Amino acid sequence: MEFSNVVTGRRSIRKYREQSVPDSEVEILIDLARHAPSSMNGQPWHFVIVRNGKSKAALAAIKNKFCPPEKQAYQADFLGTAPLIIVVCVEKSRSFGREIENGILAASIIMLAAQSRGLGSVYMSAYLTEEPKLSDAIREELGIPETFAPVSILPLGYADENPTPKDLRPLREIIHFEQF
Amino acid sequence: MEFSNVVTGRRSIRKYREQSVPDSEVEILIDLARHAPSSMNGQPWHFVIVRNGKSKAALAAIKNKFCPPEKQAYQADFLGTAPLIIVVCVEKSRSFGREIENGILAASIIMLAAQSRGLGSVYMSAYLTEEPKLSDAIREELGIPETFAPVSILPLGYADENPTPKDLRPLREIIHFEQF
Repeated sequence: MEFSNVVTGRRSIRKYREQSVPDSEVEILIDLARHAPSSMNGQPWHFVIVRNGKSKAALAAIKNKFCPPEKQAYQADFLGTAPLIIVVCVEKSRSFGREIENGILAASIIMLAAQSRGLGSVYMSAYLTEEPKLSDAIREELGIPETFAPVSILPLGYADENPTPKDLRPLREIIHFEQF
Repeated sequence: MEFSNVVTGRRSIRKYREQSVPDSEVEILIDLARHAPSSMNGQPWHFVIVRNGKSKAALAAIKNKFCPPEKQAYQADFLGTAPLIIVVCVEKSRSFGREIENGILAASIIMLAAQSRGLGSVYMSAYLTEEPKLSDAIREELGIPETFAPVSILPLGYADENPTPKDLRPLREIIHFEQF
């Protein structure tokens, strides 16, 4: 699919058809994610593919438990209904203090690649700066070692919703030349 | 350009031809970046386009000053030679504690969009978690208000280098099923 169509067509998808997503599709997404830039080319990424109902429900419960009060409208229950979830993890010793950006840059490619393959996803964080227990709970559920930081949670499936177009802020409001 | 070719063809570019990049190209990139996901659809992004030599040199000096010892091989002097630099900023009140991911998700699209338009870029961070003076210095140089977080620095230009292909880690080393 043409690059700009992928970007403009992508929306956050939280409702999925029951149709499963084959491993071959997942591997195409992760193959592309490996091309993300990383600090000092450390390529620190690991990806945990979660399909079993117990872990999907556990991830939903963990996200709900640590959901800040102002985001209660965004419940994570739908994670239990996604055909699969990709948890993006970063090896701390290979990311030189930049695990968050390294993880997000790979997650961004996965989301866009999903769109280019007719799949839907939505970006979710796997950490809270001020509350390490969110990441700890995810690590415990998925057996992720202490030396890895879970950064992003990406549910994946064929969309069963068609969100209305977003109103975007006008360019002249958000572009500044030379000085802010 | 086809999406997967954009992703696999993108490399970090630090050497640029003198050829300038028109505003119309910059606007195409930022128009696409607006489609990034953002926490609670806050669309918190502002973009400062820097072309003047004084500010480019100042950004290079700031990045060098705060460069961690283990990254001294990556000097930022080349920022002074880029035709332009996009500084991605995020309005804190519109990003709900997620200014870093919101900024990076837009920056990722800019880098990929640049590649799709024949332009080169490289991802650079505009903050250090443990050292707020890096962001403070960037804010002061570009007149960015205290209520905005500079997140990414993206130099942009037509590539004057052709990096050798990267060795990527094998998929079987970095994909895990169900448990890490």
